Amino acid sequence: MESMSEKNNFKIKTAVLTISDKGSRGERKDLSGPVIKEMMENIGAKIVYEEIIADEKEDIKEILSRIADQKKADLILTTGGTGFAKRDITPEATLAVIEKEVPGIPEKIRADTLSITPQAALSRARAGIRKQTLIINFPGSPKAARECLEAVIEIIPHGVKILKGEITEHQPGQKNKSF
Amino acid sequence: MESMSEKNNFKIKTAVLTISDKGSRGERKDLSGPVIKEMMENIGAKIVYEEIIADEKEDIKEILSRIADQKKADLILTTGGTGFAKRDITPEATLAVIEKEVPGIPEKIRADTLSITPQAALSRARAGIRKQTLIINFPGSPKAARECLEAVIEIIPHGVKILKGEITEHQPGQKNKSF
Amino acid sequence: MESMSEKNNFKIKTAVLTISDKGSRGERKDLSGPVIKEMMENIGAKIVYEEIIADEKEDIKEILSRIADQKKADLILTTGGTGFAKRDITPEATLAVIEKEVPGIPEKIRADTLSITPQAALSRARAGIRKQTLIINFPGSPKAARECLEAVIEIIPHGVKILKGEITEHQPGQKNKSF
Repeated sequence: MESMSEKNNFKIKTAVLTISDKGSRGERKDLSGPVIKEMMENIGAKIVYEEIIADEKEDIKEILSRIADQKKADLILTTGGTGFAKRDITPEATLAVIEKEVPGIPEKIRADTLSITPQAALSRARAGIRKQTLIINFPGSPKAARECLEAVIEIIPHGVKILKGEITEHQPGQKNKSF
Repeated sequence: MESMSEKNNFKIKTAVLTISDKGSRGERKDLSGPVIKEMMENIGAKIVYEEIIADEKEDIKEILSRIADQKKADLILTTGGTGFAKRDITPEATLAVIEKEVPGIPEKIRADTLSITPQAALSRARAGIRKQTLIINFPGSPKAARECLEAVIEIIPHGVKILKGEITEHQPGQKNKSF
Repeated sequence: MESMSEKNNFKIKTAVLTISDKGSRGERKDLSGPVIKEMMENIGAKIVYEEIIADEKEDIKEILSRIADQKKADLILTTGGTGFAKRDITPEATLAVIEKEVPGIPEKIRADTLSITPQAALSRARAGIRKQTLIINFPGSPKAARECLEAVIEIIPHGVKILKGEITEHQPGQKNKSF
């Protein structure tokens, strides 16, 4: 029971970054940010940062870097800007600041959501690590953001804990070691 | 009915580029180009450009860039040069000219065709966007090109329309928004 | 029968590289290297090189490059350093030395092993080609390394043979051409 309570004591410090031109100008209500926030709180994460910014590559890079470099959050979940529209630039901004890519996270997201709609293949979302912060892109619609987060929410805590050095991958007694 | 006829009026301007040393020298008949062409015409696309070129990285880069920069086509489908042979260089030429990668398209192609043959995992095909043109690599054999195109032909029109600004991802009444 | 014996005469020269800080200091027994070695020998490969090195990016790059450039092996299988721990750097070292990436190999590995554990999505493993040598990353635990190698062991010989020019992709009578 002790290890259980220890587990529950580790709260993932989570930043939710909505990337939307219209949202940043107040022309559209941000619906996907709150969806992500609620889902993360339900697994015990602590939301430490929320912001809505425009689809500007340099601004996105700056904010992702700052959160990671200042250790403000263990996890940054972005929503929006992952599609084919001219202004969609979130994946490129993410690739520009991560030090290690995590291709398996968007692969699993796309594979799982393909069963909902074949257009899931058009998501250009990425995931990666900068310092000790995991960054994952999600699409901008609340429905798609929810479905995509559902595909990986179960594995996020394990990844973040290894990243933070809370657990090692070769911990004795651990079942699925070392992926 | 009006929106239906509008839909049908948008013809995807498609370029089919066969990349093959032997094909470019006339030593092998190009069979995969015609397969792709026919499949695209069947969904109402308009073939605006066809060419057979050798597996030369700089030549491939030049032609892909030119078609995209001059807005000659909304979509470029390449066939050939995606494997393990020494001269296979299509994915690297594609990566060198695209501004935004679309990893989910080759992921879906490989996932779908793995059920046909495990060797589908050896395809190094890529997809991405340059300006307002979507570029997708396909393998060189007619059979594999057909199977791979079948995996994504359904989603190509939606992607191209968003890219061209014909529809927005958050269009009211649209079902599968914002991937 | 002749082509069968020809097939068997081609032995894949295989290097197995264990990447582990603890292993390199003798603080942990290398269990995954022997697993990979045995599985490869079972399909007729010849182990030409084995080493255990620390998670040092420059050292990994140097050894991968040297084996490929000196044609010491047709295939390099690495184990370890593919996860989220601070020192895990094998995928980045691999990306830095390969000339052509093979995204479909780690995609198939992750897709197949996701049915064993969802944490397979956290593997950051990569695969690619340098000169005529195929390099594939595997995780560091013996169980995960075995499961991941099982996902692609069937297709490795075909890939290596094309890479070495032993067979061409368009060989007459070959069934699954040109992926």
